[in-house]
Amino acid sequence: MPNGAQALMKTLVDAGIEVCFSNPGTSEMHFVAALDNEPKMRAVLALFEGVATGAADGYARMAGKPAATLLHLGCGLGNGLANLHNARKGKSPMINIVGDHATYHVKYDAQLQSDIETVARNVSPNFVRTSQRTEELCKDAAEAITAARGLPGQVATLILPADVSWGEGGQACTVPEQKPAPCADSSTIESISEAINSDKKTALLLGGQALREAGLLAAGKIAAAKGVTLFAETFPSRIERGAGLPAVERIAYLAEMASLQLSEFDHLILVDAKAPVSFFAYPGKQSYLVPDSCTVHTLSSEEQDAIASLTQLAESLGADSTQAILQSPGRPGRPKGKLSAEKVCRAVGELMPENSIIVDESITSGLMLNAMTAGAPRHDMITLTGGAIGQGLPSAIGAAIACPDRPVLALIGDGTAMYTNQALWTMARENLNVTAIIFNNASYSVLNVELERVGAEEAGEKAKSQLDISRPVTNFALLAQSMGVHGTRVQTSEELLKAMEYSLSQPGPHLIEAVVPESLNGVKRKILPYLLKSMPNLPAPLSKALKNKIAP
Amino acid sequence: MPNGAQALMKTLVDAGIEVCFSNPGTSEMHFVAALDNEPKMRAVLALFEGVATGAADGYARMAGKPAATLLHLGCGLGNGLANLHNARKGKSPMINIVGDHATYHVKYDAQLQSDIETVARNVSPNFVRTSQRTEELCKDAAEAITAARGLPGQVATLILPADVSWGEGGQACTVPEQKPAPCADSSTIESISEAINSDKKTALLLGGQALREAGLLAAGKIAAAKGVTLFAETFPSRIERGAGLPAVERIAYLAEMASLQLSEFDHLILVDAKAPVSFFAYPGKQSYLVPDSCTVHTLSSEEQDAIASLTQLAESLGADSTQAILQSPGRPGRPKGKLSAEKVCRAVGELMPENSIIVDESITSGLMLNAMTAGAPRHDMITLTGGAIGQGLPSAIGAAIACPDRPVLALIGDGTAMYTNQALWTMARENLNVTAIIFNNASYSVLNVELERVGAEEAGEKAKSQLDISRPVTNFALLAQSMGVHGTRVQTSEELLKAMEYSLSQPGPHLIEAVVPESLNGVKRKILPYLLKSMPNLPAPLSKALKNKIAP
Repeated sequence: MPNGAQALMKTLVDAGIEVCFSNPGTSEMHFVAALDNEPKMRAVLALFEGVATGAADGYARMAGKPAATLLHLGCGLGNGLANLHNARKGKSPMINIVGDHATYHVKYDAQLQSDIETVARNVSPNFVRTSQRTEELCKDAAEAITAARGLPGQVATLILPADVSWGEGGQACTVPEQKPAPCADSSTIESISEAINSDKKTALLLGGQALREAGLLAAGKIAAAKGVTLFAETFPSRIERGAGLPAVERIAYLAEMASLQLSEFDHLILVDAKAPVSFFAYPGKQSYLVPDSCTVHTLSSEEQDAIASLTQLAESLGADSTQAILQSPGRPGRPKGKLSAEKVCRAVGELMPENSIIVDESITSGLMLNAMTAGAPRHDMITLTGGAIGQGLPSAIGAAIACPDRPVLALIGDGTAMYTNQALWTMARENLNVTAIIFNNASYSVLNVELERVGAEEAGEKAKSQLDISRPVTNFALLAQSMGVHGTRVQTSEELLKAMEYSLSQPGPHLIEAVVPESLNGVKRKILPYLLKSMPNLPAPLSKALKNKIAP
Repeated sequence: MPNGAQALMKTLVDAGIEVCFSNPGTSEMHFVAALDNEPKMRAVLALFEGVATGAADGYARMAGKPAATLLHLGCGLGNGLANLHNARKGKSPMINIVGDHATYHVKYDAQLQSDIETVARNVSPNFVRTSQRTEELCKDAAEAITAARGLPGQVATLILPADVSWGEGGQACTVPEQKPAPCADSSTIESISEAINSDKKTALLLGGQALREAGLLAAGKIAAAKGVTLFAETFPSRIERGAGLPAVERIAYLAEMASLQLSEFDHLILVDAKAPVSFFAYPGKQSYLVPDSCTVHTLSSEEQDAIASLTQLAESLGADSTQAILQSPGRPGRPKGKLSAEKVCRAVGELMPENSIIVDESITSGLMLNAMTAGAPRHDMITLTGGAIGQGLPSAIGAAIACPDRPVLALIGDGTAMYTNQALWTMARENLNVTAIIFNNASYSVLNVELERVGAEEAGEKAKSQLDISRPVTNFALLAQSMGVHGTRVQTSEELLKAMEYSLSQPGPHLIEAVVPESLNGVKRKILPYLLKSMPNLPAPLSKALKNKIAP
């Protein structure tokens, strides 16, 4: 009869969970030992738990199913928390396995003893369980798996005491098939159809599953047939895009812009998305961004099948045989001369291969990324769903493991890259096809913007030095080399293009450090042209309004 | 009238809190702005929150008073959690300031919204407060400061909503002086005196404050007058040691050894220390390490004044004018030839200057560190109190800021160094006098030992690869250079000595990567000679017993 860890391992692989992103310690050694007899489980070691959890998130987004993590007690969970938060906000399914002291050891309050459950509740509000007996471990695991891969997907945390893991008498469990999620009911579809058929201005706000091909095509039909505008949530977990798919404008990060995007609509229809709110609160500014005059409808909640709901809505509107307007192919052209963040985005749009996975954690430097890649060949884009930086490099690991035949391009700000730089080591160890481009502007640039937005614009040198990471300037090419990743530092467009062409033609990981100036040196001085460029469809009166709002 | 952040800043500096280790985001911008008008507050930026919290811990240990941290919402707190755990276990005082969304913004569940309090309870079980009004902020802060710097010291977490921070009407508060902690009562001192005066074998187990000079000297008098053995807890927060102080043997990490250390005693007297328990549980082995036949007494709990209690005990025993036996000076001699972990420890013992601060997170590689530095000039040693790795490099930052005139030597395992490698950047930015020596054995070496100890010794290649960090081998010298720190890689004793002599003579941070083989290749094969060397006072029958326990 297997021990607990061995039975758990079998339960996981029988349920199709085939990758475990790990950083184990002593209390997890029996789970580690159980790897030997389970060829179907791939164990990917990370040198920091935030890498493991971010990789599991990226994997889930691209594989469409959960991976496991293996973390060491409350502290290991804490180290992984920020990327678990991003996973929670992105509704990624994941099975967190957190080793704990043996049940009888807890009372001695040894050095690593802490309240694991209280930490776990932050990211697993609906499923935290400390398994108490070897005989029940696999039942607990099966319930965790069921919770994780339901709709919405979630992070389920299973706490595994060492004696439950090493105890004899483990029994693997079969995890029941997920029940299909319900579709929007007919009365909802009817009332939304009415709103769309009225002569009011209407928009669909797509999130979650609705941003995948089938959802986009159904929404594209409705848009083409009925003149409905399509928006995507600000930070999609995964959005399919590029030539041949309907183009969808993302709601802006800046509340001022988002308000304008929404300002002319009478009906906003949510499809697996939330009504837009400001990322942060600002003194004297509204948090809720939908205008009072706009009626908000929910076509499908996060528990419902967004694609089926959109398909039924299209049918109800008689739009199911309409041809959606599809993005036409187009590359932005090769950039030239001294680098800027915009030119890096241009180079990406110019060179990214078909079927790329773009991991976007470029923060301010990526402001032009969407525009520059709109007509690129079909690709997926993964974004920072929960705002906890340090997601990009780990997420790229998971995406590359989920899709080994697809090139992964990770576009990462310098501040965020440092958070989880240990991800580079795992990329080298696993020889993953990742090209990481680091925008090195030596600044927490977004905070310079935010400092002004919160009304603290008179900040002096001491305050501003808290946003300045130029003393010293990190050398990311050296950093990559120190962990066995091919690293190059580029300062011109020509060097960048050459480095990208090389890295995209060679297997294994590459890091390209792009030395760029800050995109946004202060809201009032330079942000406006960027904002206007990123919203090409904004009517002229609104452009003027934006200008007045941002830089009166 | 100041805003909340400005009043908070004044409350902190008026209470003597003069350093803030920070990684701010938008919700903390008003606190950042308030730095401009408060010259007494030094703000030290970290590129990752685990660096900020570990630095605040190291600072508290050496300054004897709290620093503040500035963290960004629940995710920033999560990133800092592991080193907050180490601080909690080390009873370090600290004021965690965790920015939060504006109170009215919480209900919108924006991207970074999460339950901060539930995370904070893990490390601040006795003081977590979300300040609700600007007018009350400084009162909340004063209570946090009072909680933090009581006995035992603790991590107090003050959650600061953005609108409470930016609101007008802040009023700085004066924090009351701490009440002096009580001494052990006379009946306790009497009964412990009786035990010591009996002809039974007695040991004092010193922890916390008792390991500082005054405590050691009082305990040394008792030891000299009454033949009492002195032990120190396994992982002291800070221990003063070296030539001229009483030498104290630390309780071993390995439960098998610790049991033997304690096996012959009839009375164990705890002084701000816990009765020893095993770090982890192991199948079939006891967690509680004090033999059944030994009576455990508590001279002073963590709420009491350990030094006053020891002094009174010495008086009660008539030992107050006895001369303690002091460690005589002695250096171990310069190592020669190919490096080993033991030779690195020897070089440290040979070259460390008087008044050094040794930060020890060397895990298996430091097994000989205590022996090699026992007769070195007076110094302090800081250890990994909570078992959450990644403490050493951040802690070195805090120690160097607390004691700018003292050299800091940080001895760090490769696995642990990677956890919080971003600390190197802050060392460069602040030009701190830290020499970091990284033991690069390309392995989670302690886990190879633990894999055998938990009974999983038949582990195959797949399991063992989870403990192997040699593909690729990290180049720590390059890693240091990438963050502006002078970095050298050494493979011989002579190279190491030269690099150490250089780094100790030059200001600013230096990293020396010492390429060493694993100290312990399997419990049964090689650990025993090390264990015996590290316990020179073990009587022969016990050495034999140890041999039988570990490698029968």
